[in-house]
Amino acid sequence: MKKIIISIVVCIIGMLQINAQEGRIPAKGLAVYEAGGEFKTYEFTRHTLGDNDILIETMYASICHSDLHHTHQDWGTEKYPMVPGHEIVGKVVRVGKNVTKFKVGDYAGVGCMVNSCGECSYCKAGLEQYCKKVTMTYHAIDWAHDNEITQGGYSNNIVVKEHFAVLVPKNADLKKVAPLLCAGITTYSPLKQSNVKKGDNVAIAGFGGLGHMAVKYAVELGANVTVFDITEDKRGDAIRMGAVKYVNVNNLDELNGMDNSFDFVLSSIPAMYNPAMYLKMTKYKGDFAIVGLPAFNNQPTLKVMDFVFYAGRNVYGSQIGGMKETQEMIDYSVAHNIYPDVEIIKAEGATVTDAYQKVLAGKVKFRYVIDMTTLK
Amino acid sequence: MKKIIISIVVCIIGMLQINAQEGRIPAKGLAVYEAGGEFKTYEFTRHTLGDNDILIETMYASICHSDLHHTHQDWGTEKYPMVPGHEIVGKVVRVGKNVTKFKVGDYAGVGCMVNSCGECSYCKAGLEQYCKKVTMTYHAIDWAHDNEITQGGYSNNIVVKEHFAVLVPKNADLKKVAPLLCAGITTYSPLKQSNVKKGDNVAIAGFGGLGHMAVKYAVELGANVTVFDITEDKRGDAIRMGAVKYVNVNNLDELNGMDNSFDFVLSSIPAMYNPAMYLKMTKYKGDFAIVGLPAFNNQPTLKVMDFVFYAGRNVYGSQIGGMKETQEMIDYSVAHNIYPDVEIIKAEGATVTDAYQKVLAGKVKFRYVIDMTTLK
Repeated sequence: MKKIIISIVVCIIGMLQINAQEGRIPAKGLAVYEAGGEFKTYEFTRHTLGDNDILIETMYASICHSDLHHTHQDWGTEKYPMVPGHEIVGKVVRVGKNVTKFKVGDYAGVGCMVNSCGECSYCKAGLEQYCKKVTMTYHAIDWAHDNEITQGGYSNNIVVKEHFAVLVPKNADLKKVAPLLCAGITTYSPLKQSNVKKGDNVAIAGFGGLGHMAVKYAVELGANVTVFDITEDKRGDAIRMGAVKYVNVNNLDELNGMDNSFDFVLSSIPAMYNPAMYLKMTKYKGDFAIVGLPAFNNQPTLKVMDFVFYAGRNVYGSQIGGMKETQEMIDYSVAHNIYPDVEIIKAEGATVTDAYQKVLAGKVKFRYVIDMTTLK
Repeated sequence: MKKIIISIVVCIIGMLQINAQEGRIPAKGLAVYEAGGEFKTYEFTRHTLGDNDILIETMYASICHSDLHHTHQDWGTEKYPMVPGHEIVGKVVRVGKNVTKFKVGDYAGVGCMVNSCGECSYCKAGLEQYCKKVTMTYHAIDWAHDNEITQGGYSNNIVVKEHFAVLVPKNADLKKVAPLLCAGITTYSPLKQSNVKKGDNVAIAGFGGLGHMAVKYAVELGANVTVFDITEDKRGDAIRMGAVKYVNVNNLDELNGMDNSFDFVLSSIPAMYNPAMYLKMTKYKGDFAIVGLPAFNNQPTLKVMDFVFYAGRNVYGSQIGGMKETQEMIDYSVAHNIYPDVEIIKAEGATVTDAYQKVLAGKVKFRYVIDMTTLK
């Protein structure tokens, strides 16, 4: 009798769960199951399609250096399994009834965020990324959906409010679009904020996924670009992309005579470095923008005396860009044929795990893009 | 015979020295003879009056917090005896033959610098303070005068190129003018650089000699000024000077709800503090200007992550102001009746030594001005 009652209770609970799952969208992705772990297949579900949502069948998702910071818990405690990925492009396969920007068959891109409050001064100013209630694409608590943890783009699909997807032009080179959604906008935005223009002397510090996009945008804007990194391996790439000079920071001779030289300096360096060196290189009334975010427990610093000694240089940080500017960046990039240098890899656990090791070692040129259609 | 030769040689050397001293101007001041030492009378000479120089008979010289940093060697090794003082006002008593800006009897002010190269891009832009060859008013090697060490304004006179003196309007309240030459221009300049205007929310962090001038200028510009310091003793003074709010930083309750509040933040804090707190209080696209310079071995810092988290706020340092802007500041201050709160003290060693202790303890309201005419 006791067993029968237990069976009935279990059955009821099961039915309730099925009911709660109704409308939820089955998904499959590549996840790490622990900090710094290997990628393995992971099956999960996504929230139901809301009236303002679109369902995207993922075509490509790329590996951003910040994905490594998250999978390694460099930026604080994380939850697992974690499906990373905030550089996503795919095809719209379903649309909610209020959706106006997309129709089935369109290409859509998703970047670092999937929601925000929509009401604060930041949201109203098109700076959703600074909203206090912004929901990141993965590893975030989704307050609009029962506080479930968001999962990212290393997966076969994603459901997102149309406001947080950009329309990717039909003529875009799709396999290269995904990195624009983070690396592209993160570098495009400060170049625009600082009004970089033809003839400006620009320094790009850190020549990886973000840095190489910054170089391409700055060159396109007509700037004289100098690239700073710590390897000889990328010297030729910098020149090929249009830089006038490449500086290996480990070679002190190359650093001579660069003080007070640049109208604009952008640091995308994700590890320890000396920011005062770049502040000193910035011209009076020039801007030094910081977008690279090293591990929290190993932070580069600027002293108050650095600001006073190298006075009159503006230092500011920048995070990605708002949705309006992200759309502008996508349109600009496609129109000007500006894309990242990519290496396409298969959506296999071992392959992605191996790619992470290469990113960590600075061996990627310049962005791994996972072909999500190869996911088994 | 040997003794006679030695006597003759000594005599010749003495005559040569007298010859080299010809035209040099006898001066008397108050000097410290060792780091952190007491003030005692010191007799010395100043370089001869050049064709572009003026000789000023000092009337008032005031005590800047940075004088303490120099006398205590907080900012590096110094030479002694040292006559501090870079906030100086007095009467012109002689002029070189090329001088056009001054005539005998005019009032003149001298600030932190007495010379620069005159040819570099900074000098040409009226930013002499950033010239690589700038000569500070005291404790500096005077490359234009046989590399002698400059001596400052706690003295009965000073010889200076007319370019590095400002013309003080006849109707100025002379006993209050000296502090304008450093505290005034150091705070006036960033307020102008950041275009502070009517209705702006402004925070002044550090309410001492510099800070109280910043409050007066910002109030005059029509800003809503909030003052931050670590004492209750100055709360009433802030309100009296026109601040809308005073925050005792040691009272955490008072700091609540101030994030993202200010269009402009100025830090004049000369000791350890948390700059990230003020960065966080700055509005998006607001400016956080730093003019306070704590001891080199105990520097406040900003982390790269602070810039990224509180993105879009511009942080910059500023040093005094160029000569053109300093003249503009003097004219503005006199026209708008903006002067420091001062306490006049006598030019006596013990009195000045005691005043230094009070400045160190933050007990001065707000600037000690030494009446140099009382020097014996």
